[in-house]
Amino acid sequence: MSAEKLDKSKTLFLRQKHVGPSCKIFFSQDPIKIVKAKGQYMYDENGQRYLDCINNVAHVGHCHPDVVQAGAEQMGTLNTNARFLHDNLVLYAQRLQATLPPALSVCYFVNSGSEANDLALRLARNFTGHDDIITLENAYHGHVSSLIDISPYKHHQLPDAELRPSVHVAPSPDVYRGRYRADHPDPAAAYADDVRELIDRAHEKGRKIAAFIAESLQSCGGQVVPPAGYFQQVAAHVRRAGGVVIADEVQVGFGRVGSHFWAFQLQGADFVPDIVTMGKPIGNGHPMSCVVTTAEVAQAFASSGMEYFNTFGGNPVSCAIGLAVLDVIGKEDLQGNAVRVGRRLSDLLEALKRKHPLIGDVRGRGLFIGVELVKDRLTLTPATAEAQEVIYKLKEEKILLSADGPHRNVLKFKPPMCFTPEDAELVAAKLDPVLTELEEVLGLKPLDVPNVGKDRSKRTLSDERQQHHDGIGAPRPASAPKRIRKETNSRITPAAD
Amino acid sequence: MSAEKLDKSKTLFLRQKHVGPSCKIFFSQDPIKIVKAKGQYMYDENGQRYLDCINNVAHVGHCHPDVVQAGAEQMGTLNTNARFLHDNLVLYAQRLQATLPPALSVCYFVNSGSEANDLALRLARNFTGHDDIITLENAYHGHVSSLIDISPYKHHQLPDAELRPSVHVAPSPDVYRGRYRADHPDPAAAYADDVRELIDRAHEKGRKIAAFIAESLQSCGGQVVPPAGYFQQVAAHVRRAGGVVIADEVQVGFGRVGSHFWAFQLQGADFVPDIVTMGKPIGNGHPMSCVVTTAEVAQAFASSGMEYFNTFGGNPVSCAIGLAVLDVIGKEDLQGNAVRVGRRLSDLLEALKRKHPLIGDVRGRGLFIGVELVKDRLTLTPATAEAQEVIYKLKEEKILLSADGPHRNVLKFKPPMCFTPEDAELVAAKLDPVLTELEEVLGLKPLDVPNVGKDRSKRTLSDERQQHHDGIGAPRPASAPKRIRKETNSRITPAAD
Repeated sequence: MSAEKLDKSKTLFLRQKHVGPSCKIFFSQDPIKIVKAKGQYMYDENGQRYLDCINNVAHVGHCHPDVVQAGAEQMGTLNTNARFLHDNLVLYAQRLQATLPPALSVCYFVNSGSEANDLALRLARNFTGHDDIITLENAYHGHVSSLIDISPYKHHQLPDAELRPSVHVAPSPDVYRGRYRADHPDPAAAYADDVRELIDRAHEKGRKIAAFIAESLQSCGGQVVPPAGYFQQVAAHVRRAGGVVIADEVQVGFGRVGSHFWAFQLQGADFVPDIVTMGKPIGNGHPMSCVVTTAEVAQAFASSGMEYFNTFGGNPVSCAIGLAVLDVIGKEDLQGNAVRVGRRLSDLLEALKRKHPLIGDVRGRGLFIGVELVKDRLTLTPATAEAQEVIYKLKEEKILLSADGPHRNVLKFKPPMCFTPEDAELVAAKLDPVLTELEEVLGLKPLDVPNVGKDRSKRTLSDERQQHHDGIGAPRPASAPKRIRKETNSRITPAAD
Repeated sequence: MSAEKLDKSKTLFLRQKHVGPSCKIFFSQDPIKIVKAKGQYMYDENGQRYLDCINNVAHVGHCHPDVVQAGAEQMGTLNTNARFLHDNLVLYAQRLQATLPPALSVCYFVNSGSEANDLALRLARNFTGHDDIITLENAYHGHVSSLIDISPYKHHQLPDAELRPSVHVAPSPDVYRGRYRADHPDPAAAYADDVRELIDRAHEKGRKIAAFIAESLQSCGGQVVPPAGYFQQVAAHVRRAGGVVIADEVQVGFGRVGSHFWAFQLQGADFVPDIVTMGKPIGNGHPMSCVVTTAEVAQAFASSGMEYFNTFGGNPVSCAIGLAVLDVIGKEDLQGNAVRVGRRLSDLLEALKRKHPLIGDVRGRGLFIGVELVKDRLTLTPATAEAQEVIYKLKEEKILLSADGPHRNVLKFKPPMCFTPEDAELVAAKLDPVLTELEEVLGLKPLDVPNVGKDRSKRTLSDERQQHHDGIGAPRPASAPKRIRKETNSRITPAAD
């Protein structure tokens, strides 16, 4: 199964014939055929190597030998369902639980982030006896029906989308582009108050809140880092209304943020969700996933009398793989690496920001970083076409990056956790001239930067204004720059998830 | 990962502590710990071998070396998402499509039968613009929210379950226990007419039908074989109402029925569903699954503008495994084996039926067989406790069997497809004395059977009456026989799915 078996044009032909056209390909005008991968590198059918900045699923590195060996050995020994006792299941549950606050002690093993989030909704609705869900603007939680309902990100793609009355959308706690920004005295409280008002309005309509669900850091929503204290205050409002709080760690869990194993822990030890969902990186690409909750929520679900059975969930192979992933994270200190390399990458991107007016914001934690491109640092006009152009230009440089967010103008870094400082330096070096070229087309002049690579002072909106007035006054075309290809929409790289 | 690492009591302790109590264990009073498996055999921590009559997921045999090798090799080479071109994906889609009628040409790869059925509902609702679903009595289609809604089987477990107004439940086309039985002149038309009436009533309420969904043979619902022609007539009614037909092959596909690769094909070549969903056996235990539909349905879904992305679905490892499973089915003629061994097993079970009044019905196709136990062949009083006793007694004989159906009185045979005639003979031989013992307790006398193993004449309701009057007049206790343990409910084996 290792080598190329078909000519690329034949692969594409069969794909168009037999695979749902809703399933998009990266770089649809010139898709990449990947035949092997190792660590942070992917290789096409000609042996060309690409640096992978996007595949957070290959968490401990593509095809990590320890993970492959654990999976292969267990596949050859036993792969069956969780109605039989097996050590891998309980050992894995125990290991996973040990990474979480003690109250989160009961696991349900499923096959995907979507199955995990759907089960989280079932647990929440069962526990509270309520039906309504509060979700965030631009949120994406998965592809099954119940999650499309609570994923405004997916509804952006529809001309006349309408959310169900049981779904309430709170503002994204985005201090760069949102309604309360870095210059607000207390954006955490302000965004949390919006949730409280949403609850009040729901109550006025006689509705009852089952859960608030949010990614601990919004991913597809634009790599958004909520202000510290936000989740604590939201949790207080939601619990007062009889609801529970679901932290979606599908994209951002398992040490990616570096300083903590789970991204919700960035908010402080005083925030403990009622339910945590996991996915993508958990099996380094193997289809598996988990929901962890409290004994109370789990007991209530059991008391309903309805059995929960998941055919593949928690099978010995998935659990062997999950254990191996945890082992590698520890053994190779990938969390420490996320801190170190994440800092290096952030520093380099901040330096680029000081030089390039196109970069409006650099944000993130560990190896989860967003770079928001804007045509104007004051109006924050999204540089959507330019972000796509960056992606295509970097592809030519054999670097895989993507852009996401509601305006598709946020460059999204979420590489395998074995990413190195040299990889970070390569991306930054390649990004620099691409941004310069785009700025020339837009008529944006480079900013004056005396201390590139040193000064990491905190951006505030007043800084933005200052910078804008200092250096970015040049006239800009109202539409996409002329050197950017026109067919942006058709060649847009699929975003998410 | 192969050997036992914990004492069984410790495994059980950790399971109770860290795994959701809704996730039931087989034989909860004395659960089995399985550490390895091969072909149709599973082995516990003491090396004790069990004959596996229930794990249809291990379709080509537990840990089949070809499947393990294909998976291990691909895991070591590349495992990534379907936004990159890969030959495994398109080759697998092409191979799968070749097993189906030509109109079913477009695949969506997902991770589980639940994800498949949920996507089928999304496709149906998008294509028709309608919302309502017709499902069968006792149906089970999966564990995500949208499928619990259409799974009456799950609602049996709740005291005060109420279905949504968008869900319409048609009678199960069960010619043994249903409203139209084997003595009915045209049960297919009669059951289909019930669906038509359901549609009419829905229309009267202003509702519109998106889809009729049914397993091609009902599994959890009691191993029900719909009368030939039923689906054709249902399809005509449903399509006239603007709906589509979804054939759920999650349990019964991939050659299990022997004579055909897909169980819906048992109805005749003139029946082609609009959407087919697959699952369990597709990856021999690897979490993968597929939805196949027509170009029209797929195109409509794409035209909605909403991308469909499934992180793990269609990854190169899953597809390599899927291809290996198809290869083994062909190479080892497992479909032919299902015909031959299925016939042998049916013959043996029919012979037992002629001897044992407790057996009310033997039905099925290939290696998908149900044996319905009744206390009385005229009233069809379900022998629920007795079915559970059979399961426990066979476990003592190191044979794994389960019981399901709305009354949990249907012994369910769906073994790995490498099941042999000797395995069939062993099960039948072990079942015989267990039934005798139970009948003694119930006061049922064995029937007089001159031609055991020869006469396979078709059962009809009038036969039942005749047999009843001839041989089973002995008085029976109203409640469960005294020698059957009392704690039936707590020790009941989890059924489904």
